[in-house]
Amino acid sequence: MKAFGCTVPGKEAGWMEKAVPAIGPYDALVKPIVIAPCSSDVHNAFEIGSPAFLNNRVLGHEALAEVVEVGAEVKDFKPGDKIVVPAVTPDWRQPSIQDTYHQHIKNPNDSFRYAFSLDGVFAEFFLVPDADMNAAHLPDGMPYEKAVMACDMMTTGFHGAELAEIGFGESVAVIGIGPVGLMAVAGAVLRGAGRVMVVGTRQNCINIAREYGATDVISYKEGDIAKQIKAMTDRKGVDKVIIAGGNADTFAAAVTMVRPGGIVANINFYTGVPSLPIPLLAWGSGLSHKTLRGGLCPGGRRRMEKMLAMIQNGRVDPSRLITHTFRGLAEVEPAFQMMVKKPGDLIKPIVYIQ
Amino acid sequence: MKAFGCTVPGKEAGWMEKAVPAIGPYDALVKPIVIAPCSSDVHNAFEIGSPAFLNNRVLGHEALAEVVEVGAEVKDFKPGDKIVVPAVTPDWRQPSIQDTYHQHIKNPNDSFRYAFSLDGVFAEFFLVPDADMNAAHLPDGMPYEKAVMACDMMTTGFHGAELAEIGFGESVAVIGIGPVGLMAVAGAVLRGAGRVMVVGTRQNCINIAREYGATDVISYKEGDIAKQIKAMTDRKGVDKVIIAGGNADTFAAAVTMVRPGGIVANINFYTGVPSLPIPLLAWGSGLSHKTLRGGLCPGGRRRMEKMLAMIQNGRVDPSRLITHTFRGLAEVEPAFQMMVKKPGDLIKPIVYIQ
Amino acid sequence: MKAFGCTVPGKEAGWMEKAVPAIGPYDALVKPIVIAPCSSDVHNAFEIGSPAFLNNRVLGHEALAEVVEVGAEVKDFKPGDKIVVPAVTPDWRQPSIQDTYHQHIKNPNDSFRYAFSLDGVFAEFFLVPDADMNAAHLPDGMPYEKAVMACDMMTTGFHGAELAEIGFGESVAVIGIGPVGLMAVAGAVLRGAGRVMVVGTRQNCINIAREYGATDVISYKEGDIAKQIKAMTDRKGVDKVIIAGGNADTFAAAVTMVRPGGIVANINFYTGVPSLPIPLLAWGSGLSHKTLRGGLCPGGRRRMEKMLAMIQNGRVDPSRLITHTFRGLAEVEPAFQMMVKKPGDLIKPIVYIQ
Amino acid sequence: MKAFGCTVPGKEAGWMEKAVPAIGPYDALVKPIVIAPCSSDVHNAFEIGSPAFLNNRVLGHEALAEVVEVGAEVKDFKPGDKIVVPAVTPDWRQPSIQDTYHQHIKNPNDSFRYAFSLDGVFAEFFLVPDADMNAAHLPDGMPYEKAVMACDMMTTGFHGAELAEIGFGESVAVIGIGPVGLMAVAGAVLRGAGRVMVVGTRQNCINIAREYGATDVISYKEGDIAKQIKAMTDRKGVDKVIIAGGNADTFAAAVTMVRPGGIVANINFYTGVPSLPIPLLAWGSGLSHKTLRGGLCPGGRRRMEKMLAMIQNGRVDPSRLITHTFRGLAEVEPAFQMMVKKPGDLIKPIVYIQ
Repeated sequence: MKAFGCTVPGKEAGWMEKAVPAIGPYDALVKPIVIAPCSSDVHNAFEIGSPAFLNNRVLGHEALAEVVEVGAEVKDFKPGDKIVVPAVTPDWRQPSIQDTYHQHIKNPNDSFRYAFSLDGVFAEFFLVPDADMNAAHLPDGMPYEKAVMACDMMTTGFHGAELAEIGFGESVAVIGIGPVGLMAVAGAVLRGAGRVMVVGTRQNCINIAREYGATDVISYKEGDIAKQIKAMTDRKGVDKVIIAGGNADTFAAAVTMVRPGGIVANINFYTGVPSLPIPLLAWGSGLSHKTLRGGLCPGGRRRMEKMLAMIQNGRVDPSRLITHTFRGLAEVEPAFQMMVKKPGDLIKPIVYIQ
Repeated sequence: MKAFGCTVPGKEAGWMEKAVPAIGPYDALVKPIVIAPCSSDVHNAFEIGSPAFLNNRVLGHEALAEVVEVGAEVKDFKPGDKIVVPAVTPDWRQPSIQDTYHQHIKNPNDSFRYAFSLDGVFAEFFLVPDADMNAAHLPDGMPYEKAVMACDMMTTGFHGAELAEIGFGESVAVIGIGPVGLMAVAGAVLRGAGRVMVVGTRQNCINIAREYGATDVISYKEGDIAKQIKAMTDRKGVDKVIIAGGNADTFAAAVTMVRPGGIVANINFYTGVPSLPIPLLAWGSGLSHKTLRGGLCPGGRRRMEKMLAMIQNGRVDPSRLITHTFRGLAEVEPAFQMMVKKPGDLIKPIVYIQ
Repeated sequence: MKAFGCTVPGKEAGWMEKAVPAIGPYDALVKPIVIAPCSSDVHNAFEIGSPAFLNNRVLGHEALAEVVEVGAEVKDFKPGDKIVVPAVTPDWRQPSIQDTYHQHIKNPNDSFRYAFSLDGVFAEFFLVPDADMNAAHLPDGMPYEKAVMACDMMTTGFHGAELAEIGFGESVAVIGIGPVGLMAVAGAVLRGAGRVMVVGTRQNCINIAREYGATDVISYKEGDIAKQIKAMTDRKGVDKVIIAGGNADTFAAAVTMVRPGGIVANINFYTGVPSLPIPLLAWGSGLSHKTLRGGLCPGGRRRMEKMLAMIQNGRVDPSRLITHTFRGLAEVEPAFQMMVKKPGDLIKPIVYIQ
Repeated sequence: MKAFGCTVPGKEAGWMEKAVPAIGPYDALVKPIVIAPCSSDVHNAFEIGSPAFLNNRVLGHEALAEVVEVGAEVKDFKPGDKIVVPAVTPDWRQPSIQDTYHQHIKNPNDSFRYAFSLDGVFAEFFLVPDADMNAAHLPDGMPYEKAVMACDMMTTGFHGAELAEIGFGESVAVIGIGPVGLMAVAGAVLRGAGRVMVVGTRQNCINIAREYGATDVISYKEGDIAKQIKAMTDRKGVDKVIIAGGNADTFAAAVTMVRPGGIVANINFYTGVPSLPIPLLAWGSGLSHKTLRGGLCPGGRRRMEKMLAMIQNGRVDPSRLITHTFRGLAEVEPAFQMMVKKPGDLIKPIVYIQ
């Protein structure tokens, strides 16, 4: 089958021929209906070197799909069913899921299987491991462009709001307003945030941030963001920070801008530095009760069903993120290249495969 | 001064003359700007017998007010300031607030002082105990009719959503859609609820419930509400229930309609029965992990500030509850009588005193 | 094979011949090393009527066992391995375990499979469903009589302490000091309880309760237990209550004796009444923030491993519960009959099968 | 009065004459019965430079004391009462305590007032601010050397266990086994820890650690501590880490040794570096769900009462920390000097003043 992936790991992404995946008794073979390229795809292709797992690896992890074939033990899905596939598809038969996050089985983030330990969704067909546990039915009548945003953008951005444990009326800063940060804005509002200050500069993103509930916009270009936030909060700092972009300095600024007892919730993937700095004075010399945490998005079937329930009941319209639409499997390539180049008007592209 | 309260406890509410309250060093003397009668006022006046504390007691516990005089130790308020006064004004200098809910100091609900251990707000003047800790500044430009709903309706309804620990996409049933139940609907949506099913029959309330995000409406008149909810959720039951009205049977129905592992959050004040029944089979013979809890609304300054932050940032417009408006202190009486009679078009009345 | 179970459901327990269970690819066939009868076995045999599932059903759910055969997909266990089998063995491949308690899949308590939907352990052989997820290796050198108490007694009693969310120095009442209540005492101490008051009358149980850390003993025979507890806590009530025995009146007393904001954690299985009463005044008319919850013990492999870790590291010696020891499969019958008769010196019997 | 404090901030500690503190209506004037020097005293005197607040500042923050005089509004204490004074004595009349940690009012750690914004306890007399809210009665018959350890050592060490949210049977590493680390070991066991691995080298500390429940001892001298912990946990890492000593490298090691989804709880005060490093790969590039937090010990009356309840009910004997005993106010100096020099046999000294 035709697939798009890492032809020269670390250097080149392109088309390849691969065998149709063989499924086990709990798996489903599916074909994509709509896919969405993600900056993680670019990241995997070009920024993490050339680890062995990338050799000839198919990229892509956001997809709606149609079931083609199911294993003998699959109960809830049959050929022809339309499904929403989460970016994170854990192996639920590992004892570690009984006492910790399903995102991490043996090593951090190893439940993110597509493009790492499993071929991704940029292909004529792909595999959904343990379909009953990892796939969700596409609700009748739900527009594709809304549902496909649940796979990663929404579950990730909303997880930022969850990790931040936002209470009614709390002030929240969201750093970075790419598609994930925008979903974090919507998620923060849907956890009860009062004031939501965003850090970003692109006007199209700012517009969507305001639609989703941002009340204040701050720019790096106007000086130290922690100082700006402190000045806007009567020197107290914000109750919570969600980091959805940036680098080591951004992380340090987040620790500085949050109040004692607050939480910095990270959903950004960092690379290029050996460590992130916690500024000591701002962290109360270790004793400020500022909690720092970050986490890969939740996956699995029930998570998708809950994200879809929010869309279906009108709580959020994540399709507002989509700025560019492509059609046909061949268009995966220009869509991916768009993520590489990131033109100013891009927030999120999708590709209708069928 | 002129005041409206319990002239014959348990039997008659009316006007009385009382001395202007004497304030202590941390207190403020204030005069009401807007007040709102509450069904609790009716309840206090006529339904709880005639306990000693009701003798000549002024009623009322929802008010915006203007500061007239402050004690020597009050730092953050001065005469002329406009403030929002919460229904619950705890004594923050009690050690028990260090390890449990501020709503209960020595006995359940004893931080609800107005009309119980302190004269209420239906008067020319009233006292705010420990003003720095219990009063919030009215934000510049905030309409009175929005702010006054924060004192009790909003903090109570939103507390229902807090007690229910709603997660993204969960299904929630709200039983009772009077003003508190309507705020519970808004609060549930602002904690991330997906589907929100309400139980109620009055069309005006149903309309507002839908505005606030209710997705389904159920009526007692069409049969057992637990059965209806079960039928609508594929026999699973809802994730969470908020009870904002009803009787002992309603409580039992709530336990039945919630799924194992779910929560029943009560914000309804029950009277007239010695106990509430937990239906044993529905409660898994004691082992179903269905949590049952209920709680008086949080009060104090920071709670009000957070509710006001939500209004100010456009998260909710609680003034949609207000159906009737009166003007002048003398109109407290007809407004109160309206709460007694509860005409079909009533949700919530307010009285502009100034 | 020979097995002991419900020969006449609701009326008679005795020996029966059954086929050796057939295992699936994830299951293990095992033979018991040590079993322990439980009052739930008596309860199942005689007190819940004669539901269809009891026809010819083998009883028993507490066992150490030796693996005889494993399915093709079992990875971590092989014939000859000695294992600890939890009373609760969920089907981990049900989506509901992704968002709620594993004890309840479709209906309350349905992960308690032995003697309900699966033949129990009082037999020459029994089946462990999904062995990799539900069985734990017996740690080298751990005495059988300690390990076998982890299956139900310890995980249940300790769950009471978990549900009660005990904080350092809190006061806790434990009602009922049979084997589960005794484990609740030990669990409460190991969650940081200060004062631990127990309600019980049998001297042997009282002695063990004191060994496990009980500081005060109260008897039903000396009057209303809620009043006694209130009197001992300066009228405040205890911070937390764990119910490990009793009836509807006991439940009501528990609600009365806990302070506002406290928790009543139930691990008792109730029968014989349609509902449990929540005394309304003690519950603050619905608003006291007294949380009421109850839950079936956690099961599965990791839970067992954690209980075993506590035994192995010397945190608790649950074998102190064992008062009677039997040897040989045939002795299951007298051991079971002892649970039926409950002589005064009985706390917990075990039977060495091998 | 005679007092011991910062005679030349940053350089010299010694005796000084100060006025007896003037008390306000809610305060108590007390004289010390037993005090304990702390390494924080040394730290304040010599390691944080010479900030203005140190000029002529009396040191010391761990004391039992006798009440000499109380303000007019103090209700629960009278002259002659013996009290336990926490190191952290918040201003409970600040609105911020209504929605965040009482340890931090306006700035991190500012509720640690002794020796910062208030003269300390190394004096003939000292002040207890808001006595009803901050002092606890010394329980009848409790040995002084046990009670005085509650003020700081026990509440700090136990807070490490609280911040780590230890569950039954979890594995915990405690880094640093000075007096606070030793209390963290005891606290971890009393939250239900299974295996407790400590990092330390001094034999006397190791002995006490084992008494308090440590199961394994690791030394920096035998190589990278994170590697040792990983090797001992089958490469998985520990569930939780409590840091009670060390530097920036130790912090990084803690992040490395904890499993994904685990918690690093810091109770160590860091100085001398601008920031602490979070090793990126070990932190899952930001997404590992490893929570990092640290916090100043809880203070106030109820916290002390709860620590004392644990001592009184025999849950822990914190006097095992005390290795050196002095008598008389004049002996504060050699006791303090001992903390400066830290001889090998020192864990914790106390001084009986009366």
